[in-house]
Amino acid sequence: MATLYLIPVPLGPVSPDACLPPDTLAVARRLDHFVVERAKTARVHLKAMGHPQPMQALKFEELNEHTPATAIPQLLAPLKAGHDVGLLSEAGCPAVADPGAALVLAAHRENIPVVPLIGPSSILLALMASGLGGQRFAFHGYLPAREPERSQAIRELERTARREQATQLFIETPYRSAALLDALAGVLSPETYVSVGADLSLPGQLIRTRSARSWRGQAETIKDRLVVFGIGSQAP
Amino acid sequence: MATLYLIPVPLGPVSPDACLPPDTLAVARRLDHFVVERAKTARVHLKAMGHPQPMQALKFEELNEHTPATAIPQLLAPLKAGHDVGLLSEAGCPAVADPGAALVLAAHRENIPVVPLIGPSSILLALMASGLGGQRFAFHGYLPAREPERSQAIRELERTARREQATQLFIETPYRSAALLDALAGVLSPETYVSVGADLSLPGQLIRTRSARSWRGQAETIKDRLVVFGIGSQAP
Repeated sequence: MATLYLIPVPLGPVSPDACLPPDTLAVARRLDHFVVERAKTARVHLKAMGHPQPMQALKFEELNEHTPATAIPQLLAPLKAGHDVGLLSEAGCPAVADPGAALVLAAHRENIPVVPLIGPSSILLALMASGLGGQRFAFHGYLPAREPERSQAIRELERTARREQATQLFIETPYRSAALLDALAGVLSPETYVSVGADLSLPGQLIRTRSARSWRGQAETIKDRLVVFGIGSQAP
Repeated sequence: MATLYLIPVPLGPVSPDACLPPDTLAVARRLDHFVVERAKTARVHLKAMGHPQPMQALKFEELNEHTPATAIPQLLAPLKAGHDVGLLSEAGCPAVADPGAALVLAAHRENIPVVPLIGPSSILLALMASGLGGQRFAFHGYLPAREPERSQAIRELERTARREQATQLFIETPYRSAALLDALAGVLSPETYVSVGADLSLPGQLIRTRSARSWRGQAETIKDRLVVFGIGSQAP
């Protein structure tokens, strides 16, 4: 039966040959039907991954924030016709913090086999590198951009981190990263740990876990960088 | 400055050459100091990864559930002496749901650089493959083994999944997997989604997301298998 493969791609401009396992590359190279967040980026990824066919010979369907829910079922048509399909997101692992999950769930509803492949995830790399412990953890996506909602959300995450002994992860768009780190340094208890994972797996990667107090005045370090943040209340 | 590398290993008896990226293998092969969950398994992993040195020439320190917190700082000694160190867990990514996180945090406290490498994580593969959406998610480790605590925990996870629109992930030891799936099928609302990821990235991998109702009487499917479970309240 045709299978929906979930194909991770690099987290930025680095060679897929170095950061993806051979099994992942082998599947990506043999498929000719893809559902992707954006066709243009997907072509760049597949070319870099050494796909043997010319890009115009491959079939791309887009699934992104503009795709209505009603359009999802027809994306399964190639699978029902017997073609394996690869799902790619813009960066990292598909169906994690991107619209691809809807296609995966639709495949399950139709009993279509789903196979996730191994590759980079900024959330997982940030969690590993934080030292804050992964016995329990949660990922929250984006925090509110405005005050006082942002500070309220930060305090709530700190309470959850303490109560459940669980690392709380979240992301921010590059142009707001420094402002969020300033807010964390100011709002959290001075001894609460804040981990920063910037440009993970890329050149210039910055990884640091410090107390909220130690981050005060340090926000410039991550200005305009893609960051996964973590909050932890104590040693794991 | 010497660096603490976090080195993922395969999730079971498959070739590291197929499931680990070349960059991860290259780092593992050039190190000679390791902190590992169990030395015996680590030697098997490193040999399979093609480490060029005889295993008895490598230095292994153990860090596991028996290691007292007071013993952690001395594990940093090779790093302070200028040797890069690799951290390995029994399977998958180190410092996620294993005791290695304490060493990573100790390294941060001493300003020792930490570099996480790319590789397989059963939690992340389960999340991708579930189709339950990763915009928000949480991992809870093990649920209570006994009733009524287990059913209470299941109901609480369902409430959280609904309230926060967040996938709730958890694991169980193989010999209790079938009993937990029975409990999920019986305790959850019939329409709540339950995802099962068994033996992920290994031969015989089983991946399925169904309504709680559809899982009734199906627990034998995962008897004695290593499973990551997920609960989701609706389409992402």
